[in-house]
Amino acid sequence: MDDGREGRDGRLCPPSLELAGAGTVRFDETGLVPCVVQEATTGEVLMVAWMNEASLALTLSTGLTWFWSRSRQELWNKGATSGNIQRVRRLLVDCDGDTLLALVEAAGPACHTGHGTCFHREIPLELGAGEGE
Amino acid sequence: MDDGREGRDGRLCPPSLELAGAGTVRFDETGLVPCVVQEATTGEVLMVAWMNEASLALTLSTGLTWFWSRSRQELWNKGATSGNIQRVRRLLVDCDGDTLLALVEAAGPACHTGHGTCFHREIPLELGAGEGE
Repeated sequence: MDDGREGRDGRLCPPSLELAGAGTVRFDETGLVPCVVQEATTGEVLMVAWMNEASLALTLSTGLTWFWSRSRQELWNKGATSGNIQRVRRLLVDCDGDTLLALVEAAGPACHTGHGTCFHREIPLELGAGEGE
Repeated sequence: MDDGREGRDGRLCPPSLELAGAGTVRFDETGLVPCVVQEATTGEVLMVAWMNEASLALTLSTGLTWFWSRSRQELWNKGATSGNIQRVRRLLVDCDGDTLLALVEAAGPACHTGHGTCFHREIPLELGAGEGE
């Protein structure tokens, strides 16, 4: 998560997990880290969901996306009921270790609405003519 | 943020902002919403940062990415000091309104380390031979 910092600040260390060859994944104070899911072939950003240490371990060992459902308070294997599983091709962690990016091959739509991506609603910019060009 | 829910759960409503033509953006209990930043041309996911209502309004009115720095507790115009601004081409909100996706034209590297993307560290999968294929 880019937080505009030039270096480490003095805040208390949250829970973290050392990963071979990839430094540290830092979970927030609730034990979670956001994971951006991107389609490996098309580059489309499909969704963002939360992982805890257990779901990250399951993702790494099975090669499928596992998340933590905050509303249901349970581990959640994406596509286990719908069939729209996500096979992980690459998993990356950002510079300060508190956000993940999963490049996946998706078996079907990511969104529960049936859209391929959860990001299917556009917010119009308010630029006047000529601005932003 | 896909949270594995089929519909609305019974939790208390967080602060939200109605946006013309795009439904509602729902900020979390601290008034923030995560924003995924993706390069519009290459599809590369560059970074994830937080927006509050003020930074979202500035992003929409200026066409440049504005965030909220949690560590500095201040509005932050990406690239204002480094020159690596991000011109917003499209802004999208996800199905349940609590995550944003900005498609941008980046003037330079997104990461303070000089990498083009903050996601430059790979976490090796633990799959055995033949798995994940």
